[in-house]
Amino acid sequence: MSLSAILSRIDDQLPNATERLLEFLRIPSISTDPEYSGACQDAADWLVKDLQSIGIDAQKRETPGHPMVVGHVNEGGTGPHLLFYGHYDVQPVDPIELWTNDPFDPRVEDTAKGQVIRGRGTSDDKGQLMTFVEACRAYRDVNGSLPCRITFFFEGEEESGSPSLVPFMEQHADELRADLALICDTGMFQSKTPAIVTMLRGMVTEELTVTGPDMDLHSGFFGGLAINPIRVLSQILADLHDETGRVTLDGFYDGIPDLTPQMRAQWDGLGFDHASFLGDVGLSVPAGEADRMPLEMIWSRPTAEVNGIWGGYTGAGFKTVLPAKASAKVSFRLVEGQIPDRVRDAFRAHAVARLPADCKISFTAHGGSSAGIMRTDDPAFEAARVALSDEWPQEAAYVGCGGSIPIAGHFGTVLGMNAMLIGFGKDDDAIHSPNEKYDMESFHKGTRSWARILDALCQPKD
Amino acid sequence: MSLSAILSRIDDQLPNATERLLEFLRIPSISTDPEYSGACQDAADWLVKDLQSIGIDAQKRETPGHPMVVGHVNEGGTGPHLLFYGHYDVQPVDPIELWTNDPFDPRVEDTAKGQVIRGRGTSDDKGQLMTFVEACRAYRDVNGSLPCRITFFFEGEEESGSPSLVPFMEQHADELRADLALICDTGMFQSKTPAIVTMLRGMVTEELTVTGPDMDLHSGFFGGLAINPIRVLSQILADLHDETGRVTLDGFYDGIPDLTPQMRAQWDGLGFDHASFLGDVGLSVPAGEADRMPLEMIWSRPTAEVNGIWGGYTGAGFKTVLPAKASAKVSFRLVEGQIPDRVRDAFRAHAVARLPADCKISFTAHGGSSAGIMRTDDPAFEAARVALSDEWPQEAAYVGCGGSIPIAGHFGTVLGMNAMLIGFGKDDDAIHSPNEKYDMESFHKGTRSWARILDALCQPKD
Repeated sequence: MSLSAILSRIDDQLPNATERLLEFLRIPSISTDPEYSGACQDAADWLVKDLQSIGIDAQKRETPGHPMVVGHVNEGGTGPHLLFYGHYDVQPVDPIELWTNDPFDPRVEDTAKGQVIRGRGTSDDKGQLMTFVEACRAYRDVNGSLPCRITFFFEGEEESGSPSLVPFMEQHADELRADLALICDTGMFQSKTPAIVTMLRGMVTEELTVTGPDMDLHSGFFGGLAINPIRVLSQILADLHDETGRVTLDGFYDGIPDLTPQMRAQWDGLGFDHASFLGDVGLSVPAGEADRMPLEMIWSRPTAEVNGIWGGYTGAGFKTVLPAKASAKVSFRLVEGQIPDRVRDAFRAHAVARLPADCKISFTAHGGSSAGIMRTDDPAFEAARVALSDEWPQEAAYVGCGGSIPIAGHFGTVLGMNAMLIGFGKDDDAIHSPNEKYDMESFHKGTRSWARILDALCQPKD
Repeated sequence: MSLSAILSRIDDQLPNATERLLEFLRIPSISTDPEYSGACQDAADWLVKDLQSIGIDAQKRETPGHPMVVGHVNEGGTGPHLLFYGHYDVQPVDPIELWTNDPFDPRVEDTAKGQVIRGRGTSDDKGQLMTFVEACRAYRDVNGSLPCRITFFFEGEEESGSPSLVPFMEQHADELRADLALICDTGMFQSKTPAIVTMLRGMVTEELTVTGPDMDLHSGFFGGLAINPIRVLSQILADLHDETGRVTLDGFYDGIPDLTPQMRAQWDGLGFDHASFLGDVGLSVPAGEADRMPLEMIWSRPTAEVNGIWGGYTGAGFKTVLPAKASAKVSFRLVEGQIPDRVRDAFRAHAVARLPADCKISFTAHGGSSAGIMRTDDPAFEAARVALSDEWPQEAAYVGCGGSIPIAGHFGTVLGMNAMLIGFGKDDDAIHSPNEKYDMESFHKGTRSWARILDALCQPKD
């Protein structure tokens, strides 16, 4: 029962592990687009089969949306009962023309920064979730059994608001409840410091459509007299921020705690290089609230973003249409203290208040979740942090994360469990974008990291 | 040489004239989309052949864009040398799903308001231009010759900014110059009063793209810190109007003459029912400058309209992307006194002034033309107005038109000619929109109107 033997096994098996991941990546499991629901089923089936191949009692479990995959294994051991969560669904691929390869024909590429696996879902989240599965495989290959009771829990709707997740957790609470949830859907801090995320932003997503005339009009004959819905929508969206970058929604910042001096000192110590972080994507100027430090803007302050907008003629050439309607997709990242429904209500009130008498507006709620704050006083956190630090050149850190991983909050609210988020993504992984990739180093050392963490958490207690 | 015999011939031949028009309409001559350039050639060829069938020496004439069709006939007669202009190109058809029939499989439909011909280009402008051609055909069928020298001039780029028009007119000025231009691309006032348009708005069209980050970003990891181009674009567009509906561009209203008391009195006399005009398209409140009367808003005041906007994720479901760029198509309708290039420059300055340090912006000019003001002291105007009044139940009127028919201005500036705009479109023709139609009454009585006008203009002089 030697950790080093398990780590060696992981090293030896990397080519096979990579082949398995590539196979998984070829399944185009885009959850938000109904056209790909068959592929989501296929991805769930693939996971069930793969878990079964390492002795886990795994099943696909249907939901009103895409299926869950639940697996159990309990081969003895002295550690805590762990639950590992990941998601097998991926983001859409458009704009497809910007990809250098078919997003669902993943490749291992040599780049100036080392080998990468390129394709949709490599980093978010198929590559990441497989680091844990491969660690378990190696552990069992070497020791004949896993070191503690583990429940595997994979969903297929994470990229589309997880509508089935909470009902499923509520219905199967006894089956899913464990001592600690492990989640692999986050990144390394500044691409090099291994990190345990203890603060996650929540999210409210909303689609709105402003309708003016009954039909598209000729902008010559009607322009100047008939209201233009794009003009109305632009005003609604432009008014979301004031000139200092502050979100203007009524009560938006109510209840948000200020950063504690301790936390501010810790974050200062991380030496976050925002110029380099923004420079990697062609930017240089922090765009958030003028009086906040950059790490606050992405970790502990809420946002309002327009994620999509469309209306009128958008093809080649020009069409002098005065369109009947215009739409946008808007999302808000939430932090501790904010209540999703209140933010949604405030946004709708903001939009309605800017609606001329002649226009109508409709809203579609796509999802909402509160921010997640983890309890780092659980000794497993420090044990995991030390184990992580053993694998990587840099000492591991507790960090925030601007993204929304609602599941972390749901483990707390639905199952009363604490969650530990450890992931190996890099800032340049281009998740949700064309040419998503996952570093081979992330995949390899990520797998090794989980083996170390399993080993650390499952040491016999004193 | 009896006018009544010509009018009877038009009545008898209406079924054949309709068949010819349907054939012409089946050619999908969308000028703005390069995919349809072959169809534009086909439409030009069709016109050449049809003109030749009535004894006109017609030819297709290539340009760097879509071809012109030019025809000449001079069979004697005592009238002025007339030039008739129309355009064979049509608008794009999207959103295609809102059409009740294939836009290029036109139908004659019985509706509660009478027979209509439904399809793209029926009213704008194939159906309209054919009223003149059919009048000439009937005139010649009955009299054996046309009553005066006529030049036919058709272009195929009217819906895409007419880039080849002025160069072609300049190169062939001697061939094209006539005593008076006739243009059939306008409508009846409030769908019932036959109208001669003496005031047309010009237009500036512009496309802009705001670019922020190098690539689409995850709105969780970057949101709050990285600038969102949709936010920037929304601000640029929202700021185009102030709260009174006035356009904010620097110098936008410079040089625009106020409506003369005489003109204001004449327009008041037209009894424009803006509630009904807007009510037909599901609206009720004039959206223009608060201190202007509704007819001014569409005839003699300039506008700023967003004709299309797009950016980020616009598909089904939700994608929490922070997009790399966002674009819009914007147009300005111009009136007497405004200079297209100055308006374009002012718009670009307006956009650049709202650009954060981290964003780039690019502009594409799609076209520009000044407003057109006709000289109604030419006695042909009053002769035509009387002839029109003889055909229709209502007395014909001189009116303005909010649309941009740049050719009217070009006849003046390039060839020194006056232009007379007479058309038979109705307000509910849905030109530029799904389910475009042309009333059979417009087609039939429009043809009869041109026969009367030809007859009136070509009476021997005292």
